Amino acid sequence: MSLSDDIALAQRLADAAGAAIRPWWRSSFSLEDKADASPVTQADREAEEVIRRILDSERPQDGIIGEEFGASRPGAARQWVIDPIDGTTSFIAGRPIFGTLIALMQDGWPVVGIIDQPISGERWVGAMGQTTLFNGAPTTTRRCPDLTQALLATTSPHLFSEHEGEHFINLAGKVAQRRIIYGGDCYNYGLLASGHVDLVCEAGLKLHDLAALVPVIEGAGGMMCDWNGEPLHAASEGHVLALGDPARLEDVMEALACSH
Amino acid sequence: MSLSDDIALAQRLADAAGAAIRPWWRSSFSLEDKADASPVTQADREAEEVIRRILDSERPQDGIIGEEFGASRPGAARQWVIDPIDGTTSFIAGRPIFGTLIALMQDGWPVVGIIDQPISGERWVGAMGQTTLFNGAPTTTRRCPDLTQALLATTSPHLFSEHEGEHFINLAGKVAQRRIIYGGDCYNYGLLASGHVDLVCEAGLKLHDLAALVPVIEGAGGMMCDWNGEPLHAASEGHVLALGDPARLEDVMEALACSH
Repeated sequence: MSLSDDIALAQRLADAAGAAIRPWWRSSFSLEDKADASPVTQADREAEEVIRRILDSERPQDGIIGEEFGASRPGAARQWVIDPIDGTTSFIAGRPIFGTLIALMQDGWPVVGIIDQPISGERWVGAMGQTTLFNGAPTTTRRCPDLTQALLATTSPHLFSEHEGEHFINLAGKVAQRRIIYGGDCYNYGLLASGHVDLVCEAGLKLHDLAALVPVIEGAGGMMCDWNGEPLHAASEGHVLALGDPARLEDVMEALACSH
Repeated sequence: MSLSDDIALAQRLADAAGAAIRPWWRSSFSLEDKADASPVTQADREAEEVIRRILDSERPQDGIIGEEFGASRPGAARQWVIDPIDGTTSFIAGRPIFGTLIALMQDGWPVVGIIDQPISGERWVGAMGQTTLFNGAPTTTRRCPDLTQALLATTSPHLFSEHEGEHFINLAGKVAQRRIIYGGDCYNYGLLASGHVDLVCEAGLKLHDLAALVPVIEGAGGMMCDWNGEPLHAASEGHVLALGDPARLEDVMEALACSH
Protein backbone atom coordinates (compact mmCIF):
# COMPACT_ATOMS: atom_id res chain seq x y z
CA MET A 1 0.00 0.00 0.00
CA SER A 2 1.57 3.31 -1.03
CA LEU A 3 1.29 6.46 1.05
CA SER A 4 -0.70 8.09 -1.74
CA ASP A 5 -3.20 5.20 -1.67
CA ASP A 6 -3.57 5.71 2.07
CA ILE A 7 -4.06 9.46 1.66
CA ALA A 8 -6.70 8.87 -1.01
CA LEU A 9 -8.49 6.41 1.26
CA ALA A 10 -8.32 8.84 4.21
CA GLN A 11 -9.93 11.49 1.99
CA ARG A 12 -12.75 9.09 1.11
CA LEU A 13 -13.24 8.32 4.80
CA ALA A 14 -13.57 12.05 5.48
CA ASP A 15 -16.02 12.42 2.58
CA ALA A 16 -18.15 9.61 3.95
CA ALA A 17 -18.08 10.98 7.49
CA GLY A 18 -19.12 14.42 6.26
CA ALA A 19 -22.03 12.92 4.33
CA ALA A 20 -23.13 11.14 7.53
CA ILE A 21 -22.78 14.27 9.67
CA ARG A 22 -24.38 16.97 7.50
CA PRO A 23 -28.00 15.73 7.77
CA TRP A 24 -27.74 16.11 11.57
CA TRP A 25 -26.35 19.67 11.44
CA ARG A 26 -28.55 22.02 13.45
CA SER A 27 -31.30 19.43 13.60
CA SER A 28 -32.67 18.31 16.92
CA PHE A 29 -31.07 15.12 18.14
CA SER A 30 -30.97 13.33 21.42
CA LEU A 31 -27.91 13.77 23.55
CA GLU A 32 -26.52 11.20 25.88
CA ASP A 33 -23.86 11.57 28.46
CA LYS A 34 -21.16 8.99 28.06
CA ALA A 35 -19.32 7.70 31.08
CA ASP A 36 -16.84 10.58 30.81
CA ALA A 37 -19.70 13.09 30.51
CA SER A 38 -18.94 14.13 26.93
CA PRO A 39 -22.05 14.54 24.82
CA VAL A 40 -22.36 11.97 22.08
CA THR A 41 -24.84 12.20 19.30
CA GLN A 42 -26.17 9.96 16.63
CA ALA A 43 -24.05 11.94 14.19
CA ASP A 44 -20.83 10.89 15.97
CA ARG A 45 -21.86 7.28 15.90
CA GLU A 46 -23.10 7.16 12.32
CA ALA A 47 -19.95 8.89 11.08
CA GLU A 48 -17.70 6.41 12.86
CA GLU A 49 -19.79 3.46 11.65
CA VAL A 50 -19.52 4.49 8.01
CA ILE A 51 -15.74 4.92 8.37
CA ARG A 52 -15.41 1.49 10.00
CA ARG A 53 -17.44 -0.17 7.27
CA ILE A 54 -15.12 1.21 4.58
CA LEU A 55 -11.97 0.23 6.49
CA ASP A 56 -13.26 -3.27 7.28
CA SER A 57 -13.92 -3.75 3.59
CA GLU A 58 -10.82 -2.12 2.09
CA ARG A 59 -8.17 -2.62 4.76
CA PRO A 60 -9.26 -5.76 6.60
CA GLN A 61 -5.78 -6.23 8.09
CA ASP A 62 -5.51 -2.74 9.58
CA GLY A 63 -6.50 -1.88 13.12
CA ILE A 64 -9.03 0.81 14.07
CA ILE A 65 -9.09 2.98 17.17
CA GLY A 66 -12.29 5.01 17.26
CA GLU A 67 -13.62 7.40 19.84
CA GLU A 68 -17.08 5.87 19.89
CA PHE A 69 -16.53 2.14 19.32
CA GLY A 70 -13.06 1.46 20.69
CA ALA A 71 -10.34 -0.74 19.18
CA SER A 72 -10.45 -3.42 16.46
CA ARG A 73 -7.40 -5.59 15.61
CA PRO A 74 -5.24 -3.89 18.24
CA GLY A 75 -2.15 -5.89 17.30
CA ALA A 76 -1.87 -4.53 13.75
CA ALA A 77 1.14 -2.36 12.87
CA ARG A 78 -1.13 -0.03 10.92
CA GLN A 79 -3.87 1.64 12.97
CA TRP A 80 -6.53 4.07 11.77
CA VAL A 81 -7.38 6.50 14.54
CA ILE A 82 -10.79 8.14 14.22
CA ASP A 83 -12.61 10.92 16.02
CA PRO A 84 -15.82 11.30 14.03
CA ILE A 85 -16.71 14.65 15.62
CA ASP A 86 -14.00 16.44 17.56
CA GLY A 87 -15.78 19.36 19.20
CA THR A 88 -19.16 17.75 19.81
CA THR A 89 -20.29 20.65 21.97
CA SER A 90 -19.61 23.13 19.15
CA PHE A 91 -21.41 20.74 16.81
CA ILE A 92 -24.54 20.56 18.95
CA ALA A 93 -24.44 24.35 19.38
CA GLY A 94 -24.44 24.79 15.61
CA ARG A 95 -20.95 26.27 15.32
CA PRO A 96 -19.01 25.22 12.21
CA ILE A 97 -15.70 24.91 14.06
CA PHE A 98 -15.74 21.20 14.93
CA GLY A 99 -14.02 18.57 12.78
CA THR A 100 -13.68 14.96 11.76
CA LEU A 101 -10.21 13.61 12.59
CA ILE A 102 -8.72 10.72 10.65
CA ALA A 103 -5.19 9.47 11.20
CA LEU A 104 -3.18 6.51 10.02
CA MET A 105 -0.51 5.38 12.47
CA GLN A 106 2.33 3.13 11.39
CA ASP A 107 4.16 1.39 14.25
CA GLY A 108 2.79 3.96 16.67
CA TRP A 109 3.56 7.10 14.71
CA PRO A 110 0.96 9.12 12.73
CA VAL A 111 1.93 9.20 9.04
CA VAL A 112 -1.34 10.57 7.61
CA GLY A 113 -3.73 13.04 9.23
CA ILE A 114 -6.90 14.81 8.13
CA ILE A 115 -8.85 17.60 9.83
CA ASP A 116 -12.15 17.95 8.00
CA GLN A 117 -14.83 20.59 8.58
CA PRO A 118 -17.83 19.17 6.74
CA ILE A 119 -20.12 22.22 6.95
CA SER A 120 -17.80 24.87 5.53
CA GLY A 121 -16.07 22.31 3.31
CA GLU A 122 -12.59 22.93 4.71
CA ARG A 123 -10.02 20.16 4.83
CA TRP A 124 -6.41 19.98 5.98
CA VAL A 125 -4.45 16.93 4.80
CA GLY A 126 -1.04 16.11 6.23
CA ALA A 127 1.30 13.23 5.43
CA MET A 128 4.79 12.41 6.60
CA GLY A 129 7.40 14.11 4.44
CA GLN A 130 4.84 16.13 2.46
CA THR A 131 3.65 19.71 2.61
CA THR A 132 0.24 19.99 4.25
CA LEU A 133 -2.65 20.79 1.92
CA PHE A 134 -5.61 23.02 2.75
CA ASN A 135 -8.44 22.35 0.30
CA GLY A 136 -5.85 20.96 -2.08
CA ALA A 137 -3.33 23.83 -1.93
CA PRO A 138 -0.05 23.85 0.03
CA THR A 139 -0.35 25.67 3.35
CA THR A 140 2.24 26.68 5.92
CA THR A 141 2.43 28.11 9.43
CA ARG A 142 3.69 31.66 9.96
CA ARG A 143 6.72 32.99 11.75
CA CYS A 144 6.13 34.47 15.19
CA PRO A 145 9.12 36.65 16.09
CA ASP A 146 7.67 37.77 19.41
CA LEU A 147 5.64 35.69 21.88
CA THR A 148 3.76 38.77 23.12
CA GLN A 149 2.20 39.11 19.65
CA ALA A 150 1.28 35.44 19.35
CA LEU A 151 -2.34 34.45 18.83
CA LEU A 152 -3.00 31.72 21.40
CA ALA A 153 -5.91 29.27 21.26
CA THR A 154 -7.39 26.75 23.68
CA THR A 155 -10.75 25.05 23.68
CA SER A 156 -11.99 25.49 27.23
CA PRO A 157 -10.65 26.41 30.65
CA HIS A 158 -12.67 23.47 32.00
CA LEU A 159 -10.28 21.04 30.32
CA PHE A 160 -7.50 22.08 32.71
CA SER A 161 -7.09 20.81 36.25
CA GLU A 162 -6.33 23.58 38.73
CA HIS A 163 -2.62 22.81 38.47
CA GLU A 164 -2.69 22.68 34.67
CA GLY A 165 -4.68 25.89 34.60
CA GLU A 166 -1.91 27.69 36.49
CA HIS A 167 0.58 26.79 33.78
CA PHE A 168 -1.83 27.90 31.07
CA ILE A 169 -2.37 31.21 32.87
CA ASN A 170 1.40 31.68 32.98
CA LEU A 171 1.52 31.29 29.23
CA ALA A 172 -1.59 33.41 28.62
CA GLY A 173 -0.03 36.15 30.72
CA LYS A 174 2.79 36.46 28.19
CA VAL A 175 0.54 37.22 25.21
CA ALA A 176 -1.68 40.28 24.75
CA GLN A 177 -5.02 39.67 26.46
CA ARG A 178 -7.21 40.15 23.44
CA ARG A 179 -5.08 37.71 21.43
CA ILE A 180 -6.42 34.58 23.14
CA ILE A 181 -9.27 32.66 21.56
CA TYR A 182 -11.37 30.01 23.27
CA GLY A 183 -13.40 27.21 21.75
CA GLY A 184 -12.47 25.56 18.50
CA ASP A 185 -11.08 22.07 19.27
CA CYS A 186 -9.24 20.63 16.24
CA TYR A 187 -10.20 23.60 14.06
CA ASN A 188 -7.65 25.76 15.89
CA TYR A 189 -4.87 23.38 14.82
CA GLY A 190 -5.95 23.68 11.20
CA LEU A 191 -5.84 27.47 11.50
CA LEU A 192 -2.38 27.20 13.02
CA ALA A 193 -1.24 25.04 10.09
CA SER A 194 -2.48 27.79 7.75
CA GLY A 195 -0.72 30.63 9.58
CA HIS A 196 -3.67 32.32 11.30
CA VAL A 197 -3.01 31.09 14.86
CA ASP A 198 0.44 30.85 16.47
CA LEU A 199 0.00 28.63 19.52
CA VAL A 200 -2.43 26.04 20.83
CA CYS A 201 -2.06 24.83 24.40
CA GLU A 202 -4.35 22.13 25.76
CA ALA A 203 -4.65 19.39 28.33
CA GLY A 204 -6.71 16.23 28.48
CA LEU A 205 -6.30 15.27 24.83
CA LYS A 206 -6.53 11.59 23.99
CA LEU A 207 -4.95 9.71 21.11
CA HIS A 208 -8.03 10.12 18.90
CA ASP A 209 -7.98 13.90 19.57
CA LEU A 210 -4.38 14.40 18.54
CA ALA A 211 -3.03 11.71 16.18
CA ALA A 212 -4.41 13.42 13.05
CA LEU A 213 -3.06 16.80 14.10
CA VAL A 214 0.61 15.78 14.03
CA PRO A 215 1.09 15.26 10.26
CA VAL A 216 -1.03 18.36 9.52
CA ILE A 217 1.02 20.63 11.81
CA GLU A 218 4.43 19.18 11.03
CA GLY A 219 3.85 19.13 7.27
CA ALA A 220 3.01 22.84 7.50
CA GLY A 221 6.29 23.69 9.24
CA GLY A 222 4.94 23.70 12.79
CA MET A 223 5.74 21.58 15.80
CA MET A 224 3.73 19.48 18.23
CA CYS A 225 5.07 18.47 21.61
CA ASP A 226 4.06 18.04 25.21
CA TRP A 227 4.31 20.73 27.90
CA ASN A 228 7.96 19.84 28.47
CA GLY A 229 8.83 20.25 24.80
CA GLU A 230 9.15 16.49 24.35
CA PRO A 231 7.61 14.58 21.45
CA LEU A 232 4.07 13.44 22.27
CA HIS A 233 4.02 9.99 23.84
CA ALA A 234 1.77 7.87 25.98
CA ALA A 235 2.97 9.51 29.22
CA SER A 236 2.32 13.08 28.01
CA GLU A 237 -0.98 13.01 29.95
CA GLY A 238 -2.71 14.76 27.10
CA HIS A 239 -0.62 17.92 27.58
CA VAL A 240 -0.36 19.21 24.05
CA LEU A 241 1.38 22.22 22.54
CA ALA A 242 1.27 23.20 18.90
CA LEU A 243 3.62 25.94 17.70
CA GLY A 244 3.44 27.52 14.30
CA ASP A 245 7.00 28.75 14.73
CA PRO A 246 9.24 26.13 16.38
CA ALA A 247 11.76 28.91 17.13
CA ARG A 248 9.45 30.03 19.96
CA LEU A 249 9.71 26.71 21.82
CA GLU A 250 12.13 27.98 24.44
CA ASP A 251 10.03 31.10 25.11
CA VAL A 252 6.91 28.96 25.49
CA MET A 253 8.67 26.55 27.83
CA GLU A 254 9.84 29.45 29.97
CA ALA A 255 6.34 30.96 30.03
CA LEU A 256 4.60 27.68 30.93
CA ALA A 257 7.17 27.13 33.70
CA CYS A 258 6.42 23.41 33.98
CA SER A 259 9.90 22.52 35.15
CA HIS A 260 9.88 24.98 38.08
CA MET B 1 -39.76 56.33 7.44
CA SER B 2 -41.48 52.99 7.93
CA LEU B 3 -40.00 50.14 9.94
CA SER B 4 -39.77 48.08 6.77
CA ASP B 5 -37.74 50.84 5.09
CA ASP B 6 -35.38 50.84 8.05
CA ILE B 7 -35.05 47.07 7.96
CA ALA B 8 -34.30 47.17 4.24
CA LEU B 9 -31.65 49.83 4.82
CA ALA B 10 -30.12 47.85 7.68
CA GLN B 11 -29.84 44.87 5.34
CA ARG B 12 -28.06 47.00 2.75
CA LEU B 13 -25.68 48.24 5.44
CA ALA B 14 -24.88 44.64 6.34
CA ASP B 15 -24.37 43.76 2.67
CA ALA B 16 -21.95 46.67 2.26
CA ALA B 17 -20.03 45.79 5.43
CA GLY B 18 -19.69 42.18 4.31
CA ALA B 19 -18.33 43.28 0.94
CA ALA B 20 -15.77 45.44 2.75
CA ILE B 21 -14.76 42.65 5.15
CA ARG B 22 -14.49 39.62 2.86
CA PRO B 23 -11.34 40.74 0.96
CA TRP B 24 -9.50 40.87 4.33
CA TRP B 25 -10.60 37.41 5.43
CA ARG B 26 -7.55 35.25 6.24
CA SER B 27 -5.27 37.75 4.53
CA SER B 28 -2.36 39.28 6.36
CA PHE B 29 -3.17 42.67 7.80
CA SER B 30 -1.56 44.90 10.34
CA LEU B 31 -2.96 44.87 13.83
CA GLU B 32 -2.98 47.78 16.17
CA ASP B 33 -3.81 47.88 19.80
CA LYS B 34 -6.41 50.49 20.58
CA ALA B 35 -6.41 52.24 23.92
CA ASP B 36 -8.52 49.45 25.42
CA ALA B 37 -6.15 46.80 23.98
CA SER B 38 -8.66 45.33 21.54
CA PRO B 39 -7.15 44.51 18.16
CA VAL B 40 -8.50 46.64 15.37
CA THR B 41 -7.91 45.94 11.75
CA GLN B 42 -8.34 47.73 8.51
CA ALA B 43 -11.35 45.52 7.89
CA ASP B 44 -13.14 46.95 10.97
CA ARG B 45 -12.48 50.47 9.85
CA GLU B 46 -13.36 50.04 6.21
CA ALA B 47 -16.60 48.28 7.10
CA GLU B 48 -17.65 51.08 9.46
CA GLU B 49 -16.67 53.73 6.93
CA VAL B 50 -18.83 52.23 4.19
CA ILE B 51 -21.78 52.02 6.58
CA ARG B 52 -21.32 55.64 7.64
CA ARG B 53 -21.17 56.82 4.05
CA ILE B 54 -24.51 55.18 3.25
CA LEU B 55 -26.16 56.54 6.41
CA ASP B 56 -24.80 60.05 5.89
CA SER B 57 -26.25 59.99 2.41
CA GLU B 58 -29.60 58.30 3.05
CA ARG B 59 -30.42 59.27 6.64
CA PRO B 60 -28.64 62.59 7.15
CA GLN B 61 -30.79 63.39 10.21
CA ASP B 62 -30.06 60.16 12.07
CA GLY B 63 -27.27 59.75 14.59
CA ILE B 64 -24.53 57.13 14.38
CA ILE B 65 -22.71 55.41 17.23
CA GLY B 66 -19.88 53.30 15.84
CA GLU B 67 -17.26 51.22 17.60
CA GLU B 68 -14.39 52.62 15.57
CA PHE B 69 -15.32 56.25 14.88
CA GLY B 70 -17.53 57.26 17.79
CA ALA B 71 -20.73 59.33 17.71
CA SER B 72 -22.22 61.59 15.02
CA ARG B 73 -25.32 63.74 15.66
CA PRO B 74 -25.66 62.53 19.26
CA GLY B 75 -28.85 64.51 19.85
CA ALA B 76 -30.94 62.66 17.26
CA ALA B 77 -33.86 60.52 18.45
CA ARG B 78 -32.90 57.84 15.93
CA GLN B 79 -29.43 56.37 16.38
CA TRP B 80 -27.73 53.70 14.27
CA VAL B 81 -25.41 51.63 16.44
CA ILE B 82 -22.65 49.83 14.57
CA ASP B 83 -20.03 47.26 15.47
CA PRO B 84 -18.39 46.48 12.13
CA ILE B 85 -16.64 43.35 13.43
CA ASP B 86 -17.80 41.95 16.74
CA GLY B 87 -15.30 39.23 17.56
CA THR B 88 -12.20 40.76 16.01
CA THR B 89 -9.97 38.14 17.60
CA SER B 90 -11.95 35.34 15.96
CA PHE B 91 -11.80 37.29 12.71
CA ILE B 92 -8.01 37.64 12.78
CA ALA B 93 -7.71 33.96 13.72
CA GLY B 94 -9.72 33.00 10.65
CA ARG B 95 -12.75 31.62 12.51
CA PRO B 96 -16.10 32.32 10.81
CA ILE B 97 -17.90 33.02 14.09
CA PHE B 98 -17.57 36.81 14.28
CA GLY B 99 -20.27 39.18 13.07
CA THR B 100 -21.26 42.63 11.90
CA LEU B 101 -23.78 44.22 14.28
CA ILE B 102 -26.21 46.87 13.09
CA ALA B 103 -28.94 48.33 15.28
CA LEU B 104 -31.39 51.18 14.97
CA MET B 105 -32.36 52.74 18.29
CA GLN B 106 -35.43 54.94 18.61
CA ASP B 107 -35.48 57.11 21.73
CA GLY B 108 -32.92 54.85 23.37
CA TRP B 109 -34.52 51.51 22.59
CA PRO B 110 -33.30 49.13 19.83
CA VAL B 111 -36.09 48.58 17.29
CA VAL B 112 -34.06 46.89 14.52
CA GLY B 113 -31.08 44.58 14.92
CA ILE B 114 -28.94 42.54 12.53
CA ILE B 115 -26.28 39.94 13.28
CA ASP B 116 -24.47 39.22 10.02
CA GLN B 117 -21.80 36.58 9.42
CA PRO B 118 -20.31 37.60 6.08
CA ILE B 119 -18.16 34.52 5.44
CA SER B 120 -20.76 31.79 5.88
CA GLY B 121 -23.52 34.10 4.62
CA GLU B 122 -25.66 33.80 7.74
CA ARG B 123 -27.87 36.67 8.85
CA TRP B 124 -30.30 37.16 11.72
CA VAL B 125 -32.70 40.09 11.39
CA GLY B 126 -34.84 41.23 14.29
CA ALA B 127 -37.35 44.07 14.51
CA MET B 128 -39.69 45.17 17.26
CA GLY B 129 -42.98 43.29 17.09
CA GLN B 130 -41.82 40.94 14.36
CA THR B 131 -40.58 37.36 14.32
CA THR B 132 -36.82 37.16 13.89
CA LEU B 133 -35.63 35.93 10.51
CA PHE B 134 -32.59 33.74 9.90
CA ASN B 135 -31.56 33.94 6.25
CA GLY B 136 -35.09 35.11 5.49
CA ALA B 137 -37.00 32.39 7.37
CA PRO B 138 -38.70 32.77 10.76
CA THR B 139 -36.57 31.40 13.61
CA THR B 140 -37.30 30.86 17.30
CA THR B 141 -35.53 29.96 20.50
CA ARG B 142 -36.14 26.56 22.10
CA ARG B 143 -37.66 25.61 25.42
CA CYS B 144 -35.24 24.62 28.16
CA PRO B 145 -37.19 22.72 30.82
CA ASP B 146 -34.13 21.99 32.96
CA LEU B 147 -31.19 24.32 33.61
CA THR B 148 -28.81 21.36 34.06
CA GLN B 149 -29.35 20.48 30.39
CA ALA B 150 -28.89 24.04 29.12
CA LEU B 151 -26.17 24.78 26.60
CA LEU B 152 -24.34 27.81 28.00
CA ALA B 153 -22.07 30.10 25.97
CA THR B 154 -19.64 32.87 26.83
CA THR B 155 -16.87 34.41 24.77
CA SER B 156 -13.90 34.42 27.11
CA PRO B 157 -13.15 34.03 30.80
CA HIS B 158 -10.84 37.06 30.42
CA LEU B 159 -13.87 39.33 29.99
CA PHE B 160 -14.86 38.72 33.61
CA SER B 161 -13.34 40.49 36.58
CA GLU B 162 -12.53 38.14 39.45
CA HIS B 163 -15.83 39.00 41.13
CA GLU B 164 -17.83 38.61 37.92
CA GLY B 165 -16.04 35.34 37.23
CA GLU B 166 -17.28 33.93 40.54
CA HIS B 167 -20.88 34.56 39.52
CA PHE B 168 -20.27 32.97 36.13
CA ILE B 169 -18.70 29.93 37.78
CA ASN B 170 -21.78 29.63 39.99
CA LEU B 171 -23.94 29.50 36.87
CA ALA B 172 -21.55 27.21 34.99
CA GLY B 173 -21.62 24.84 37.94
CA LYS B 174 -25.35 24.30 37.41
CA VAL B 175 -25.03 23.04 33.83
CA ALA B 176 -23.29 19.87 32.67
CA GLN B 177 -19.59 20.59 32.19
CA ARG B 178 -19.37 19.58 28.57
CA ARG B 179 -22.34 21.80 27.73
CA ILE B 180 -20.42 25.08 27.99
CA ILE B 181 -18.95 26.66 24.87
CA TYR B 182 -16.37 29.43 24.79
CA GLY B 183 -15.60 31.91 22.04
CA GLY B 184 -18.21 33.13 19.62
CA ASP B 185 -19.10 36.75 20.53
CA CYS B 186 -22.35 37.82 18.80
CA TYR B 187 -22.59 34.54 16.89
CA ASN B 188 -23.66 32.76 20.09
CA TYR B 189 -26.67 35.08 20.36
CA GLY B 190 -27.70 34.23 16.81
CA LEU B 191 -27.48 30.54 17.64
CA LEU B 192 -29.57 31.16 20.75
CA ALA B 193 -32.20 32.93 18.62
CA SER B 194 -32.32 29.83 16.40
CA GLY B 195 -32.67 27.36 19.27
CA HIS B 196 -29.20 25.80 19.33
CA VAL B 197 -27.90 27.53 22.47
CA ASP B 198 -29.93 28.14 25.65
CA LEU B 199 -28.01 30.74 27.62
CA VAL B 200 -25.36 33.38 27.04
CA CYS B 201 -23.80 35.10 30.04
CA GLU B 202 -21.26 37.88 29.55
CA ALA B 203 -19.72 40.93 31.15
CA GLY B 204 -18.05 43.99 29.73
CA LEU B 205 -20.40 44.44 26.78
CA LYS B 206 -20.82 47.95 25.46
CA LEU B 207 -23.78 49.48 23.66
CA HIS B 208 -22.38 48.63 20.23
CA ASP B 209 -21.90 45.00 21.32
CA LEU B 210 -25.45 44.50 22.48
CA ALA B 211 -27.97 46.88 20.87
CA ALA B 212 -28.43 44.71 17.77
CA LEU B 213 -28.85 41.57 19.85
CA VAL B 214 -32.02 42.71 21.62
CA PRO B 215 -34.48 42.73 18.67
CA VAL B 216 -32.98 39.47 17.36
CA ILE B 217 -33.35 37.62 20.66
CA GLU B 218 -36.72 39.07 21.67
CA GLY B 219 -38.23 38.59 18.21
CA ALA B 220 -37.26 34.92 18.46
CA GLY B 221 -39.05 34.45 21.80
CA GLY B 222 -36.03 34.87 24.03
CA MET B 223 -35.13 37.42 26.67
CA MET B 224 -32.24 39.76 27.30
CA CYS B 225 -31.57 41.29 30.69
CA ASP B 226 -28.78 42.17 33.08
CA TRP B 227 -27.44 39.88 35.80
CA ASN B 228 -30.23 41.00 38.14
CA GLY B 229 -32.93 40.12 35.64
CA GLU B 230 -33.60 43.80 34.90
CA PRO B 231 -33.96 45.22 31.40
CA LEU B 232 -30.59 46.32 30.01
CA HIS B 233 -29.84 49.94 30.82
CA ALA B 234 -26.88 52.25 31.10
CA ALA B 235 -26.09 51.11 34.66
CA SER B 236 -26.03 47.40 33.78
CA GLU B 237 -22.22 47.59 33.58
CA GLY B 238 -22.22 45.39 30.52
CA HIS B 239 -23.58 42.42 32.49
CA VAL B 240 -25.66 40.67 29.88
CA LEU B 241 -27.79 37.55 30.00
CA ALA B 242 -29.63 36.06 27.06
CA LEU B 243 -32.15 33.30 27.71
CA GLY B 244 -33.77 31.25 25.00
CA ASP B 245 -36.47 30.23 27.46
CA PRO B 246 -37.58 33.15 29.67
CA ALA B 247 -39.17 30.61 32.03
CA ARG B 248 -35.66 29.79 33.30
CA LEU B 249 -35.01 33.34 34.51
CA GLU B 250 -35.58 32.56 38.17
CA ASP B 251 -33.31 29.49 38.01
CA VAL B 252 -30.57 31.52 36.36
CA MET B 253 -30.90 34.31 38.94
CA GLU B 254 -30.61 31.78 41.74
CA ALA B 255 -27.56 30.15 40.10
CA LEU B 256 -25.75 33.44 39.46
CA ALA B 257 -26.43 34.48 43.07
CA CYS B 258 -25.81 38.17 42.38
CA SER B 259 -28.15 39.34 45.11
CA HIS B 260 -26.46 37.34 47.88
